[in-house]
Amino acid sequence: MVTASSVWDDVARIRARAPLVHNITNFVVMNTTANALLALGASPVMSHAVEEVEEMVGLASALVLNIGTLTPSWVTAMEVAARAAQARGVPIVLDPVGAGATVLRTHAVRRLIAVAPPAVLRGNASEILAVAGGAATTRGVDSATGVDAARAAAHALSDAHGCAVVVSGPVDLVVRNGVEVRVANGTPLLGRVTGMGCTATALIGAFLAVNPDAAAAAAHAMAVMGIAGELAAGTAAGPGTFQAHFLDALAGLTEAEIRARLKVEGDEARG
Amino acid sequence: MVTASSVWDDVARIRARAPLVHNITNFVVMNTTANALLALGASPVMSHAVEEVEEMVGLASALVLNIGTLTPSWVTAMEVAARAAQARGVPIVLDPVGAGATVLRTHAVRRLIAVAPPAVLRGNASEILAVAGGAATTRGVDSATGVDAARAAAHALSDAHGCAVVVSGPVDLVVRNGVEVRVANGTPLLGRVTGMGCTATALIGAFLAVNPDAAAAAAHAMAVMGIAGELAAGTAAGPGTFQAHFLDALAGLTEAEIRARLKVEGDEARG
Amino acid sequence: MVTASSVWDDVARIRARAPLVHNITNFVVMNTTANALLALGASPVMSHAVEEVEEMVGLASALVLNIGTLTPSWVTAMEVAARAAQARGVPIVLDPVGAGATVLRTHAVRRLIAVAPPAVLRGNASEILAVAGGAATTRGVDSATGVDAARAAAHALSDAHGCAVVVSGPVDLVVRNGVEVRVANGTPLLGRVTGMGCTATALIGAFLAVNPDAAAAAAHAMAVMGIAGELAAGTAAGPGTFQAHFLDALAGLTEAEIRARLKVEGDEARG
Repeated sequence: MVTASSVWDDVARIRARAPLVHNITNFVVMNTTANALLALGASPVMSHAVEEVEEMVGLASALVLNIGTLTPSWVTAMEVAARAAQARGVPIVLDPVGAGATVLRTHAVRRLIAVAPPAVLRGNASEILAVAGGAATTRGVDSATGVDAARAAAHALSDAHGCAVVVSGPVDLVVRNGVEVRVANGTPLLGRVTGMGCTATALIGAFLAVNPDAAAAAAHAMAVMGIAGELAAGTAAGPGTFQAHFLDALAGLTEAEIRARLKVEGDEARG
Repeated sequence: MVTASSVWDDVARIRARAPLVHNITNFVVMNTTANALLALGASPVMSHAVEEVEEMVGLASALVLNIGTLTPSWVTAMEVAARAAQARGVPIVLDPVGAGATVLRTHAVRRLIAVAPPAVLRGNASEILAVAGGAATTRGVDSATGVDAARAAAHALSDAHGCAVVVSGPVDLVVRNGVEVRVANGTPLLGRVTGMGCTATALIGAFLAVNPDAAAAAAHAMAVMGIAGELAAGTAAGPGTFQAHFLDALAGLTEAEIRARLKVEGDEARG
Repeated sequence: MVTASSVWDDVARIRARAPLVHNITNFVVMNTTANALLALGASPVMSHAVEEVEEMVGLASALVLNIGTLTPSWVTAMEVAARAAQARGVPIVLDPVGAGATVLRTHAVRRLIAVAPPAVLRGNASEILAVAGGAATTRGVDSATGVDAARAAAHALSDAHGCAVVVSGPVDLVVRNGVEVRVANGTPLLGRVTGMGCTATALIGAFLAVNPDAAAAAAHAMAVMGIAGELAAGTAAGPGTFQAHFLDALAGLTEAEIRARLKVEGDEARG
């Protein structure tokens, strides 16, 4: 069950433990996601050299893989890191940025899942459909499809790989083992800033570092993203000030704010 | 003719169509230019792998090439993308960041122009002089020369390659086919934030995606940059808050603000 | 002697001369450090291609080397740049980000120091201990050790290589030739934003460009970081707004603010 208490317990654990989260991510969002992890209370490290990723993942409590601005040498590094993470029991979260837009990206995601199934896969509807092999059209890195269009694909991927799957959208859908949770927190401003999807993925990494229940960790992260976004939207004058206020909200997030704002549609089996 | 109405019409088209703008740009500004494109209403994608740039440019309505933080493998990817863009009629805007500072950069720009002439070339005076083969001294990535020093070079490049050329400065000069437009909007704070020239180039990409007149698209983008900068400068306490307010101003820009502030010195033939 | 006047004189020189600072740094902080250098009054350039770093460093007044997000090809470029800097008398500042966390990073730092000793080496306690060959544990890129634990290592490195060594922490320790200066300015918020250590290193580059006394340049930079941080903390609501206010404070920094806030524990020989 995802409740205000379960969200808050994880936030408190992250703040107390400052888990090291190893990110192999894209150039556009490295700074953004590092700052979001720091604001939440985690300790981010960005490292992609194939010569060091095994060592680095050995120090970490979670591994974040994100295929934006991908090249083949980065896929290799991600594979090496993923294998090392799997061997050491470090949970992986995978973000299939732009899957479906190009063959390179779609294949990279499928290969990474085959190498070491992630604990959580998070994408927008187009990306999840593309990973599942559906006929989605990914337009660049933005979804052209609604969340529910990817519901069956999300369940199929979850069932096939044993992972939680998050389909991000105005209402986020989290599925695992046939169970669904919907998180309705958020603001349209999250879509007006680059890398907020990637930030959600990075925060899932922090929650995985303190919570072995992948579906709960994913739902908690999406709730915290949405609530911090709502708080920031309340004071921002546009997408520029929103970015700063979002980090402030994340750093200052209280149990009372979670309790007042959490909008989770209760766990239910797939219909 | 560049008028408040012509600027506003393009802004409204960008917001309505959210054109996909494919960027192969430098590491310093990727986040900044992606956020500026989003704030304006366009949909940015950053992708530089030679394995995927042809596919990606095929989805896009404009291609932005920027040679900051260049290496030879990036030049190759830019050439492949430029050829694909040309074949599909996707307009290109090229930013010769630091041309004249190093042989690598000067040669890369000339090769990219030879491979596929851009619709728009935008640089500061030093860079435009260097591309034209003049004796400019580029000091790092900042211009040491006034806009008018590059006027003849801009016309020569425009005449040789059939492109619009923008020389950025306190008053921006846009030339094409012997015609000149000057845009006098802006604020010194634009020079105190990294990547604002690159941001202008990215925004030109968005305007090219909705307007086939390259000189008008370029002038409209420079006007919007300058006006958003003026609005942000009115409320910022320094270059840090200016960045956030600039994005807010871009996202909220109204026809009335353009009408009240636009400072274009009318189109005139070269004297 | 580090005094408010000596700090201010350097700030005024940087603003008057706008020295070009060449950075070969990591992907996470490129934008952040470029903006901090611009806010201070310097002129940053980021360039890492082995084909151009010699030319670029020849235009610069200081070279900043930072090994975050390192790969072997970047080490090669840093070596080429370091040799060129040494040959031309351009001062180098080196940031051993994550030294001790992986073999790649520790070895890269040692090789860079062997190729061309920097004027200043700046790291946290874990990193300085790792570079010196001590038994520090570097947890990702954040220090797990107090500043004084690295005091002997800092002196050993300074004595061995003739450089100033900065150990960053709540109170920064600057050592050279057996002399110590401690700078007690700062705010915990500096630790809640990614790349503020890297920013300190970049600012040291700007101070080295105008001051041949490496220990003084380093101490001045740390003081300016700390004071701008204190000013920003006074108005920020969290780490997001802090980033913007920090740049504003850096750009607006006055002699009176330095005079009112500087906390330097006077130069003293090692006890």
